[in-house]
Amino acid sequence: MAVVLAVLDTSPRRTVSSYDGPVSDIPPDLARLRSSIDNIDAALVHLLAERFKCTQAVGELKAAEGLPPADPEREERQVARLRALAHDSGLDPRFAEAFLGFIIAEVIHHHERIAGRPEQP
Amino acid sequence: MAVVLAVLDTSPRRTVSSYDGPVSDIPPDLARLRSSIDNIDAALVHLLAERFKCTQAVGELKAAEGLPPADPEREERQVARLRALAHDSGLDPRFAEAFLGFIIAEVIHHHERIAGRPEQP
Repeated sequence: MAVVLAVLDTSPRRTVSSYDGPVSDIPPDLARLRSSIDNIDAALVHLLAERFKCTQAVGELKAAEGLPPADPEREERQVARLRALAHDSGLDPRFAEAFLGFIIAEVIHHHERIAGRPEQP
Repeated sequence: MAVVLAVLDTSPRRTVSSYDGPVSDIPPDLARLRSSIDNIDAALVHLLAERFKCTQAVGELKAAEGLPPADPEREERQVARLRALAHDSGLDPRFAEAFLGFIIAEVIHHHERIAGRPEQP
């Protein structure tokens, strides 16, 4: 049994799979954390793709109905809600607000393109 | 039966729940899209909270082992992977790269605090 275990576990640092390839040159705890970060990042990218599908549809709807691309009152409510969610989940509310601003800037850029308006310099 | 349905559905625009409160003053399609965006944003905030738990642990590990806060080679691999994931999921790879840069800047800021290094001016 000990022999079998030795065969199965000759290189414990390689047991953490990662797209980084062999991870024997970094601490195993660091490799494990990076593997989790990579999984979370893949989820974030897919959620962001889904979010932009929604905002793309919003942009087309706003353009069709002649509504302005930006909606400061809606953004204010979004900021307040995300700050509260961030606080409850242990995320820095300041970062959550900056994050939303980062995304909304991109969304408005998309909406301006949909509406055919000149882009900001 | 028709009476019951009428009672349940006297104001169809209000059937889309939203933290925005009554949504009777905006198009129902826009209210529905905003409701989805709000759900996605809540998921994003919680995933980001989890990601920063991981990077917090990475920062402590790096500080304990004397490793530098930034790791350009790892970041290069992350960018390439996220651009590929973005491409496959319909997200603009340029945005995915900017998004990662935005998060990593915050992470490095955290790591510098953990390591007790002076912050960038």
